[in-house]
Amino acid sequence: MPLITPRVLKGFRDYLPAAMLARERLMETARRVYRSYGFSPIDTPALEYAEILLGKGGDESDKQLFRFTDQGKRDVALRFDLTVPLARFAAEHFAELGTPFKRYHIAPVWRGENVQRGRYREFLQCDFDTIGTESNAADIETLLVIHDLMVALGFERFKIRVNNRLLLNGLLESLGLTDKSVGVLRAIDKLDKIQAAGVITELVDKVNLTPDAAAKVVAVCRRGAALSELEPFLGDNPSGQLGLSRLRELFSAAQLAGIPAERMELDVSIARGLDYYTGTIYETFLTDLPGIGSVCSGGRYDNLAGLFTKEKLPGVGASLGLDRLLAAMEELKLLPESSTPAPILIVQFFADRLGEYLRMGRLLRAAGLNTEVFPDAKPVGKQLKYADRKGFRLALIAGPDEFTNGVWQVKNLQSGAAEKVTEANLIEKLHAELATPASHAVE
Amino acid sequence: MPLITPRVLKGFRDYLPAAMLARERLMETARRVYRSYGFSPIDTPALEYAEILLGKGGDESDKQLFRFTDQGKRDVALRFDLTVPLARFAAEHFAELGTPFKRYHIAPVWRGENVQRGRYREFLQCDFDTIGTESNAADIETLLVIHDLMVALGFERFKIRVNNRLLLNGLLESLGLTDKSVGVLRAIDKLDKIQAAGVITELVDKVNLTPDAAAKVVAVCRRGAALSELEPFLGDNPSGQLGLSRLRELFSAAQLAGIPAERMELDVSIARGLDYYTGTIYETFLTDLPGIGSVCSGGRYDNLAGLFTKEKLPGVGASLGLDRLLAAMEELKLLPESSTPAPILIVQFFADRLGEYLRMGRLLRAAGLNTEVFPDAKPVGKQLKYADRKGFRLALIAGPDEFTNGVWQVKNLQSGAAEKVTEANLIEKLHAELATPASHAVE
Repeated sequence: MPLITPRVLKGFRDYLPAAMLARERLMETARRVYRSYGFSPIDTPALEYAEILLGKGGDESDKQLFRFTDQGKRDVALRFDLTVPLARFAAEHFAELGTPFKRYHIAPVWRGENVQRGRYREFLQCDFDTIGTESNAADIETLLVIHDLMVALGFERFKIRVNNRLLLNGLLESLGLTDKSVGVLRAIDKLDKIQAAGVITELVDKVNLTPDAAAKVVAVCRRGAALSELEPFLGDNPSGQLGLSRLRELFSAAQLAGIPAERMELDVSIARGLDYYTGTIYETFLTDLPGIGSVCSGGRYDNLAGLFTKEKLPGVGASLGLDRLLAAMEELKLLPESSTPAPILIVQFFADRLGEYLRMGRLLRAAGLNTEVFPDAKPVGKQLKYADRKGFRLALIAGPDEFTNGVWQVKNLQSGAAEKVTEANLIEKLHAELATPASHAVE
Repeated sequence: MPLITPRVLKGFRDYLPAAMLARERLMETARRVYRSYGFSPIDTPALEYAEILLGKGGDESDKQLFRFTDQGKRDVALRFDLTVPLARFAAEHFAELGTPFKRYHIAPVWRGENVQRGRYREFLQCDFDTIGTESNAADIETLLVIHDLMVALGFERFKIRVNNRLLLNGLLESLGLTDKSVGVLRAIDKLDKIQAAGVITELVDKVNLTPDAAAKVVAVCRRGAALSELEPFLGDNPSGQLGLSRLRELFSAAQLAGIPAERMELDVSIARGLDYYTGTIYETFLTDLPGIGSVCSGGRYDNLAGLFTKEKLPGVGASLGLDRLLAAMEELKLLPESSTPAPILIVQFFADRLGEYLRMGRLLRAAGLNTEVFPDAKPVGKQLKYADRKGFRLALIAGPDEFTNGVWQVKNLQSGAAEKVTEANLIEKLHAELATPASHAVE
């Protein structure tokens, strides 16, 4: 029979050990941080009724669904995000869950998009949300979670940009621009690309603003503006004042809770979709990798599950772009190169001493030391070459001398240094060797 | 617009927090044990070419694929197991991976099977394999991994049944039954159900064995037989002798490595599918839950990826039936009832002290204490009711008295006892309170 060519579908990818170790580390970190704030995990099916995912009259082309008819003639599709399944889930289990309901969900989603570099048709989403409360405390906590998540992932230099749709709407109202808000928002979204002068031109030429109004819009939307600078523009607009006071409380409580001021800033220009978010909005940029865009984004919404229930479910949350972050780190060679989760390789010197090697492996594991035993009694040099290629840090060797003298040879694979150690001192020695950081070791 | 009824597809399920916390704990445990032996994670796409999953001429009805034509007119399907994707993966990345290659893969698979209790159309598989070596060391290690995994999952009373197809084939050859092996294996598979006498009857009546041969088969297949008891039946059959010697080494090395003898036994009656496995075979039964069948099964195979490459890839591995185990534990009420990953709830007494509550939350998290801050300044009684329902263990309260005196009230939600503690002593106090086990707390 002719061979079948092994290959994956266009837009899909395999994760080999080094990349998957890094991906698991990111997922574990996200889980740890979400849990530390009391968010609980949930899971929902990958496949749902297409009607549920699209909503009645939903625009399918937008979502690029993987949609088909199943064995039972049901119209089904793979989920394209975790927000719609959350809405369906919350509506279905509302009574049992109670509020506030805090959940995280880390799971793959599928979109038949055109394939770009670093973008795939299958990717992980990593969302957290607090549902059933309008309290600003949940908005503030969302900021803390994003901050602590970024730090836990190993980033020091990042900025969380915050806005509030109420403030933005209030400003547009006060400036008499409510009916032009779509065009205004579209223009200010280009501030980074075409700068203030370009935005003013666009506001005047395309959105028909007066030069004065355009200049005001751009002044208001300056990133990093102080809240006090915006107040004069607001007058007594109630929506704007509410947005302002919520943002004021957010920045002050976050600072009191220990978030460094330089890691958060007001950015009135961010709107993140014109309809979905109704309150606080978050975007997160890496100072050293601005090109990959926001790596953690979200906001507050008034009504999560209006398609499925009359119960009004307000909430706030954000989503970590885990696979995008990973692809960027991979491209920038920021990932560890090791492809083993174990730092220690026990060399199999004598096949007939296998039980001894296996016993030692279990002894080390019980002491928290991940240890692999090489499965064949090949020449030691070959086994060490394997260890080197995979990124092991230490080899443990017991040949005739060692068995005669009741010791084990500990070989540091980076320095090449070797030392003979009695079994009684072995665990302490290995911990000490591993305490010095290795450039390519997995943490 | 009329509401859409929120519902999942038949055969699919949502995981609510309590069940998902337990599921994540099982997955984390499996990852930890696999990694401790040097197995690396990989991931592959949920969707593959149907041709890859089925093999040319594969029997689709057998696999009950979710299969469809995608936007690019490709014939695709959701994976129905993790073994075929591993074969494709190994064939595709062989040169880069090198051997031995040890991987684990924890991921959902989909099968359009008829729905039974505790069986779903979407479920997690949790596999580990060592590829590229014929060494018995890998077979022995597989047994150690299964053992250590079960212990880590919290089971004390279980038995790993081991067989070797070489031994079984040798016995059938020696008894002159090779041409009747399918019928013989089918009959002995019923030993548990119809006992020795029933099997003998079936062997005589349906498989046309002499009563003498049938009695011999049943004697040989007695579960827990000693290897030495089988030797006389084998004669000098080379396949049987090889199987015997590999099993002998397996039991003796495993015992030397510290596996209690009562947790493993020879069971010549297990064959696990007639074709796929060619060497050692494993099944694992819980002493207190025998009805759910084997919870961790696997074996050795000669050639993993023959459909995709001429490279011969022998290997050995096993698969933990994680979702089946979870469903059984759920049904038997063995799961923790808590639906929060945080043991501590900080009550929000004053809305205008929110920053203080949030600061305390971050302080506790930095000390490794998962802590939720209640998002609304509702009456304390309501907040404590929420804490109780979710399974929090401690509440931290600061009202007027506490702020005046610079203390926090620690309330044990199980005993009802409360104590006022200074901030300097708080972390130590909370650790001490949590050190006493709680019946329904998540570990």
